[in-house]
Parts: sequence; C-alpha cells; structure tokens
Amino acid sequence: MNGRAQAALARSSALVGPELDKAVGRLEPELREPALHHLRGGGKGVRGALAVIGAGACSANEADGVPGAVAVELVHNYSLIHDDIIDDDEERRHRPTVWARYGVGRAIVVGDALANLATELLLEDPTSRRVRAAQLLTESTARMISGQADDMAFERRGAVGAEECLKMEEGKTGALLSCASAIGAVLAGGDDATIKALGIFGLRVGIAFQAVDDVLGIWGEPGVTGKPVGSDLLTHKKSLPVAIAQARGGEELERALDAVATGADVAEATRLIEATGARDEVMAIADRALAEALEAIGSVPLVDRYREDLVAIAHFVTERDR
Amino acid sequence: MNGRAQAALARSSALVGPELDKAVGRLEPELREPALHHLRGGGKGVRGALAVIGAGACSANEADGVPGAVAVELVHNYSLIHDDIIDDDEERRHRPTVWARYGVGRAIVVGDALANLATELLLEDPTSRRVRAAQLLTESTARMISGQADDMAFERRGAVGAEECLKMEEGKTGALLSCASAIGAVLAGGDDATIKALGIFGLRVGIAFQAVDDVLGIWGEPGVTGKPVGSDLLTHKKSLPVAIAQARGGEELERALDAVATGADVAEATRLIEATGARDEVMAIADRALAEALEAIGSVPLVDRYREDLVAIAHFVTERDR
Repeated sequence: MNGRAQAALARSSALVGPELDKAVGRLEPELREPALHHLRGGGKGVRGALAVIGAGACSANEADGVPGAVAVELVHNYSLIHDDIIDDDEERRHRPTVWARYGVGRAIVVGDALANLATELLLEDPTSRRVRAAQLLTESTARMISGQADDMAFERRGAVGAEECLKMEEGKTGALLSCASAIGAVLAGGDDATIKALGIFGLRVGIAFQAVDDVLGIWGEPGVTGKPVGSDLLTHKKSLPVAIAQARGGEELERALDAVATGADVAEATRLIEATGARDEVMAIADRALAEALEAIGSVPLVDRYREDLVAIAHFVTERDR
Repeated sequence: MNGRAQAALARSSALVGPELDKAVGRLEPELREPALHHLRGGGKGVRGALAVIGAGACSANEADGVPGAVAVELVHNYSLIHDDIIDDDEERRHRPTVWARYGVGRAIVVGDALANLATELLLEDPTSRRVRAAQLLTESTARMISGQADDMAFERRGAVGAEECLKMEEGKTGALLSCASAIGAVLAGGDDATIKALGIFGLRVGIAFQAVDDVLGIWGEPGVTGKPVGSDLLTHKKSLPVAIAQARGGEELERALDAVATGADVAEATRLIEATGARDEVMAIADRALAEALEAIGSVPLVDRYREDLVAIAHFVTERDR
C-alpha cells in the first residue's frame, strides 16, 4: 500500500470507526452482535475515508464529513452482508460470514437494520445539507441495488455485452464510491461543480477498481487474492474480461467457458480469453477510468493536501498486486 | 367486513394503487417483476388507507397523504418479502412467495429495493413536511426491525414474558401502523398534538390487531384463517397467549407445549392454555388497546367523516372472524 493512502485511511478510521461503532451500538443485542462480528472483519474503510477527505477538500473540517462516512459505510456493509447470502459465501476475510455464523434470517434482518440506520442517522438532524446527503445516499443506493440485480440477471444469461457489463459495474461498485466521494462535500457545503467533480471521481475510481478486480478474478495469484486460480471462471461469473472475450472469440471459447469445471479447464479457458486480447483491453479500461478520475478532481478548486490524499487512494484501490 | 371500512379501503386503493405501481415501475425488470408478483397478491392496503385518511382528517386533500401511503406500503411489503424468506413460508394468499418463485437472492434484493425506494421517493421533493415524513418513516422502520429481531430471538428461548412479548408486537406490528396513521397528518401539516394522537391510534390498533391474530393462531377456524388448527403451537411460536399461559401454568403445560408435534398434541396444549385463562386475557388486551386507539383520536379535532373512517378501520382490522 502506498504510504500516503495508508496514512489517510488510518486518520479517517480513527475519526469514523468510533462513530460507526456508536451507530451500531444503537441496535439491540440480537442485531448488534452479528453487525459487530461483520465490522470486526476489518474492511479498509475506503468509503468512509473518501467522505471525510471530501469534506476536508472543501476547506471544512474532516469531522464534518463523518455523518456521511458513517452512512456510506453502513450501506456498504449491509450490501456485503446480503451479498454473502446471495452468493452463498461462507467466508469473508477468513472468518465466517454473518449468515454462516448466525443464520440467513438474522443476516437478512441485520442488513435491513444497517441500511435503514444510514438514512435515519442523517435525517435525525435535518439541516438542508444533511437532507441533501440523505437524498444522494438513497439515489446512489438505488443504483447500487440496480447493479446488483443486473449482476444476478447476467448469471441466467449466455453472453453479456461489454457495455452492459460495464454499466452493471458502474452501478454495483461505482454508485456508492461516487456517493462516498461527494457526500463529504455536500455536508461541507461545497459548490455544485465540486460536488459533481468528486462524484465523477468516485464513479471512475469504482470502474477502475472493478476492472482490476475482474482481471484478478481470472489471473490473480491465489496467495494474494485468497481465492482459487480463475475463481470467476469456476463460478461462471460474467465479468468484464469474459464479456469482451466473448464478443471477440468464437465457438471454441464458448465451449471452453461452458466446460470449466476443474483447474485444467480453467487454464485452457484463461489461455483462450487472453488470446482475444481481453486482458489488455480491461487493463486499458482501468487505466482510462483512473485517468478520468484524476482529471475530474484536477479541474476544481480543492485543498491541495486532500486532493493528494484522493489521488493516493485512487492509486491504492486500483493496485494490481492486491 | 364493515361497509364503511370497505368503502374507505376501496377509495384509498384507487388513489394509492396507481402511484404504488408507478413507484415499482421505476425498478428494472429484474426487480419489478417479482415486486409486482408480490403486490398482485392483493393486500388490503390498510396502511396506505390510514395515510390518506390521516391527511383528510387534518382538513387536507386525501391526495396529500399519497406519498406517505406509497412509502409505508413499500416498507410493509419489503418486510413481508423478507419475512417470508426468514419464516420459510412458500405461500402467501395461496400464491408462491417471492423467494419460492424467484429464489432467495432475488427476494432479498427486491426487498432491499422497495425499502430504499420508500425513503428515496419522499426525499425527491424535500419540503420540510416530506423530510419530517421520511424521518418518521425511518424511525418507525427501525422499531419494526427491532420487533422482528426480538421475535427471532424469542424462538431460541424457553418461556417469554407477556410484557416483552407485547413490546415485541408493538415494534413488529405497531410501529409501522403508527407511522401509517400519522404520516398523512405530517404531510398535511397537522399540528403536533394531532400527529401524536394519530400515532398512538395506529400503535394501539396494531396491538389489538396482533392480539386477535395471536388468538386466531391458536383457536382460529382453519377454513377462515387458511392455516392449520393451532398453527402457532405447531411452529412453537412465542405468541401472547402462550407467554401469558406460561407465566400462569405449570410443568404439565410446559411438557404439553414442548411435545406438540401432531393434531392430538395441539388439542391438549390448547386445552391447557385455555384453562389458564390466557385466551380471555389476550382478548381483554385487544379490547383495551382498541378502546385506547379510539380514545386517542377522540381527543383531537379531526374532520368527522375521516374520524369515522378511522374508527371503522380500527374495528375492521380487529375483527375476530377474519
């Protein structure tokens, strides 16, 4: 991890972590315990960090972004808890997921509680800035849910176009990162152009992050990703490299993708995907999205050291050796 | 059904139904289809009706309550869709539940989408009344979720006290009915005393409804309830009659409750519960709650014909022969 991103994440975590714990502490024990089990898994807190840095970037105190940081972290974590049920994932960061530990019913209700708490907290003190933050959050959550639904719909289909795959990832990953990047500026009273630029920054960072993630899902080192070689091919996930390869490849590729069941099949399918140039194309998409993210925040007046933090975090979340 | 309640529900359904459909129509097909499948099951729309009647009762147009009606119906229906997963119920109103028809994953995401949509819609036009309505909705949803969590926690316990059982039902059933009853007045700009009185009305109606429902869960006619005789005893649900009976009964009752597995066991356990006087006690609780509901709206100035609608609906939802 680059040192600047590490320092920014540590600083924001010290601000946001206690408030997030306090928020979850309002839930009754039946829900609090599973929620804390999940939070103790130790996410990096990127979304919360973007929110407090966004406030700082608009010449406000980082602390002004904290209610937004808590809200986006609550939404992010509710979506992870529900996603783990949907994807039948029993482990996250080498610990049992909420449903695996506490049952599907409790995991559903814990997720529902965190989702509702996010908006409830913002509206408790309904200043016009906080109301606007809640508006942004619910709109972004709707886009995130829509991306999640597209992802599920793709699983029941054959080939998926690269464009629609990108659009799905914009929703599933980009929408909440966009909200996280802009919500601090909203709470700090930043002007519309700045809020918009920060939102574009977050959206593009999300696309770059997801593109890299998709490449790692096929070509990542199991020792680094913690997933088996070619895990996305084994689960027949419709990711960006697969969508691009399918648009370029022929019947041989289709048969190889359909047939993936073992490690040997994975190697063959991976070779055929790579032969279409899809891997390079996805890395080029990631590079372009990252450049667009940096360009967006280069065009508006922001406090320099916070702009540098944003740049550092953008590079950090799109690192290829994670 | 009493005629006045029937007329009020039909009138509000004509106002709220199209707007609810329009709201759900914003979702993409992957989510819209299961959501409409669920809505087409034909709930009575009591919550939506309370919201529009609440607006009318404050001398506003019933239409002023519609955004609140749509929001409470969205929250109510998301909770049903998630509850059906949690309770493993494959049918609702003689049709497959969303998870049974479309899978657990889609049912989770459809519920999430409806929940978020409720607040998103209220905040799209953030007048101070709508913001206050969104505040009330998120607070009430938190209490509803808390009641749902208590209900799940009770399943893993032995005896549950009558007081904590009542508190659970206040949350699970009362909180959203309270919100539904008050939200129309909030949107109509009613004064605080009126909003509070309508909220108490809805809460007490919820308690009366749930108490009657608990009695029907043990003593209801299968032909009317659509559930087997003593269905709550067969599933070992901790309902109010059971909680009261356990506080009064002895070891014989405990053994009988634990042993319920067949229709013959149900008859024996039912007899022992009835012998404690728990059935009469729960009906007395329902009667008291209904009287308190009517008293609450008797004490504030409301447009008479809407007050009469509220009285009719309160009687309707606590009817014993449903």
